[in-house]
Amino acid sequence: MEVDLNCDMGEGYGRWLLGDDETMLGIVTTANVACGFHAGDPNIMVATARMAKSKGVAVGAHPGFNDLWGFGRRVIRGDTMAEIETMIAYQIGAMQACAALAGHKVTHVKAHGALGNLTNDEADFAMALGRAIKAVDPSLVYMVMPGLPTQQSAESLGLDMAFEVFADRTYDDSGNLTSRKKPGSVLDDADEAASRVLAMVREQAITTVTGKRIPARIDTICVHGDGATAIAMARRVRAALETDGIAIAPFRPSGI
Amino acid sequence: MEVDLNCDMGEGYGRWLLGDDETMLGIVTTANVACGFHAGDPNIMVATARMAKSKGVAVGAHPGFNDLWGFGRRVIRGDTMAEIETMIAYQIGAMQACAALAGHKVTHVKAHGALGNLTNDEADFAMALGRAIKAVDPSLVYMVMPGLPTQQSAESLGLDMAFEVFADRTYDDSGNLTSRKKPGSVLDDADEAASRVLAMVREQAITTVTGKRIPARIDTICVHGDGATAIAMARRVRAALETDGIAIAPFRPSGI
Amino acid sequence: MEVDLNCDMGEGYGRWLLGDDETMLGIVTTANVACGFHAGDPNIMVATARMAKSKGVAVGAHPGFNDLWGFGRRVIRGDTMAEIETMIAYQIGAMQACAALAGHKVTHVKAHGALGNLTNDEADFAMALGRAIKAVDPSLVYMVMPGLPTQQSAESLGLDMAFEVFADRTYDDSGNLTSRKKPGSVLDDADEAASRVLAMVREQAITTVTGKRIPARIDTICVHGDGATAIAMARRVRAALETDGIAIAPFRPSGI
Amino acid sequence: MEVDLNCDMGEGYGRWLLGDDETMLGIVTTANVACGFHAGDPNIMVATARMAKSKGVAVGAHPGFNDLWGFGRRVIRGDTMAEIETMIAYQIGAMQACAALAGHKVTHVKAHGALGNLTNDEADFAMALGRAIKAVDPSLVYMVMPGLPTQQSAESLGLDMAFEVFADRTYDDSGNLTSRKKPGSVLDDADEAASRVLAMVREQAITTVTGKRIPARIDTICVHGDGATAIAMARRVRAALETDGIAIAPFRPSGI
Repeated sequence: MEVDLNCDMGEGYGRWLLGDDETMLGIVTTANVACGFHAGDPNIMVATARMAKSKGVAVGAHPGFNDLWGFGRRVIRGDTMAEIETMIAYQIGAMQACAALAGHKVTHVKAHGALGNLTNDEADFAMALGRAIKAVDPSLVYMVMPGLPTQQSAESLGLDMAFEVFADRTYDDSGNLTSRKKPGSVLDDADEAASRVLAMVREQAITTVTGKRIPARIDTICVHGDGATAIAMARRVRAALETDGIAIAPFRPSGI
Repeated sequence: MEVDLNCDMGEGYGRWLLGDDETMLGIVTTANVACGFHAGDPNIMVATARMAKSKGVAVGAHPGFNDLWGFGRRVIRGDTMAEIETMIAYQIGAMQACAALAGHKVTHVKAHGALGNLTNDEADFAMALGRAIKAVDPSLVYMVMPGLPTQQSAESLGLDMAFEVFADRTYDDSGNLTSRKKPGSVLDDADEAASRVLAMVREQAITTVTGKRIPARIDTICVHGDGATAIAMARRVRAALETDGIAIAPFRPSGI
Repeated sequence: MEVDLNCDMGEGYGRWLLGDDETMLGIVTTANVACGFHAGDPNIMVATARMAKSKGVAVGAHPGFNDLWGFGRRVIRGDTMAEIETMIAYQIGAMQACAALAGHKVTHVKAHGALGNLTNDEADFAMALGRAIKAVDPSLVYMVMPGLPTQQSAESLGLDMAFEVFADRTYDDSGNLTSRKKPGSVLDDADEAASRVLAMVREQAITTVTGKRIPARIDTICVHGDGATAIAMARRVRAALETDGIAIAPFRPSGI
Repeated sequence: MEVDLNCDMGEGYGRWLLGDDETMLGIVTTANVACGFHAGDPNIMVATARMAKSKGVAVGAHPGFNDLWGFGRRVIRGDTMAEIETMIAYQIGAMQACAALAGHKVTHVKAHGALGNLTNDEADFAMALGRAIKAVDPSLVYMVMPGLPTQQSAESLGLDMAFEVFADRTYDDSGNLTSRKKPGSVLDDADEAASRVLAMVREQAITTVTGKRIPARIDTICVHGDGATAIAMARRVRAALETDGIAIAPFRPSGI
């Protein structure tokens, strides 16, 4: 049995850095690299891809809204779905070129922040993301949340998927993350997160805040990259899985 | 005998448009598409690629400095050559993805404005551009100016080239364009431009402001896309060539 | 009897221009100048203020979301109201400095696009705008829509107001503009717009799409600056008012 | 005898922070606040001004090139001097508004990074900065380097000045900073910097790398805000001055 650990990386811009990517690349097996719209710039993208390659970590494109100021966390309404698709395609292509410069290769796509939430909340955003992936490179893996619009759009478009759960977030009965505005939506305790992750992977199921159990294929676990305790939690999650005999390795997409 | 006509296009941004691309796409055979750093945005890039495809016009990536304010015409000093290379690679990849979305394909790369000038003035900029092309896709054609650092870097990197002259600019004895700051550097008269272009293509040579004749392979002629007389001059240049029996068609890169 | 005509201006950015500001400045008596966040840049702001001063046209700050790509028309959610206030204050100050450079003076503030709509739809946005005005310069006039949150916030903060109606938009029974998504929300016919404006000013009342009549002080009429028919409609509106004996002059704010 | 300590602050952007401003505000007496073009955003500007006010620290506008990516350290050529003036004026006005929101007041202006260097290297840049200050608010103090174009332009425009030296930089015989490209241009040793500062203030003179002594009024000493040792060096410089009986207080501009 094996599972992937993924983390957002390359989230600086120009002079500004965020998170300890070098250390995190020693813990996780997949990096979602910001593509310059909400964070990241070409230099950081190449450097991140280069560092990932040297450590055997897979890289993916992590497109977001064009919102450096808001770090891609502000919801921006007003683009058509064709425009959302286009904006995502641009970022995927840019990341592919930066990976090429680093001698690496983009293997998947996962949307960031507000854009990522919209793809799991609204079917048309999920389809726009899926169409962008398919148009740019249909061999790219669509990282999806089990049972949500991302999975449905990936399936309808015939794209390979990697099923993701979050280490430090709780789930509501729809199978989506509980809102960050609600108390208890984010787990701060590394031990609690680690044991929840282990249970989800063992059972291949998500347990919601009401105790409901939703069967779910789980290929990859998202750990967060910034914040004071990010490294400690990622290490704790990895250790819990390995101690239990679960290998940590880049995901193998469905369909392979 | 045949020659290509190329023009910069897709030079709007968001709500702002520039030039009459639709008409121009009926005249030229190659479009250099702005990639979002000095002009252009994903939506405009896709729309331009789609329109080009429908009219049988080839598209290339037209990377520039990250300077929307200055339209890429301001010289920005301070990046390392590795950073220039990276910045260009990013834009090429983004354009490839936008072309893919439009069902089209990027065939060449030409740098814009101040960055373009630097690649013809300074060998390290020309090499940075060449390395970016080679890393992203070595089958892309490097559009070069005969005898200048762009040609030299393309040759040293083993890249296919398309040799370019400008319809409305004069040349100094180095084979480079005369500075825009000098009087007479830009030709406003369409007839004069057309007859100069015809002579250059017929003779496969550039005639400089002192009357010096520099033999040069000429694959493509750059006509300008904005300004009140752009369309008229492009039409006049094309008519002069066709009347003289020279076919207008997308360039075939050297090496083919 | 007199009334002001206002128009958004200075809506270019760098190399890009929008609208025929010079002609429009011969028709209207107040210009709302974009402040660099959704459009406008320092050079355009100063040039617009200079041109306005030379024609006796009053200028105001026209702050928007930081969204050049979307021209400030995309709704951006996620900022706190303190952040909205701050973002507006920044733009007002910037405009004051640009006006000073042009030897002119900012007299009022009106929010643009999506931000403007939010200030008329939601009380907290209207208050954020009002607080920004008050903090930067309490002598600035708050341009408000009669009966809506903008008026209420201006009153609660003790700010001078100018009451505005739109020449080419219809109103619903709340006194707010009908949504642009609804057919008939925008008037294309200059004669129809002109006679509606004349009626509103004469009666000091807004007539809604259901025929309801809402009494309203009217100090200023907004005409649009871009679009093919903008100049023609502005001229027609002005002519209709003047023919009827109503003088066109910069607004005098309430409280004076 | 007294002298001011100044430091660049508010150099984050959106999600990104830089330097330990809170601690530094307990050491220095004047803060140069980034104005959103090379760093800083409205929220950070207001927060910095608020924190400065609470600690009795004076604030100034610290305008730079519009270059977030390059942190204002890249030289951008191509703007006219009228455009440079305008770009600076915009930032001063924006900072004044942000200070107003914080209940504080801008007292001076100092240009950042590449723009700052240009104002000390080239008279036309120095004059553009001076004209911007004068147009926006002639009571603002122009922070100048003794004997350089900044001083000359301030004098010719009749602006109040504060004369500045740098704690951790060496000087060449022109009285300008030695190029960062030269070895030894930046002092890393806090003790060495502190004793040099003390000597300069005591003697009211700059000693150059060749040992030449240039008499100079010294009102304020610049300490750097970022880098691992910034806080330690600022503390050391302050301690050296205070131990020697020199009071640390916001500068009093010449002319008062």
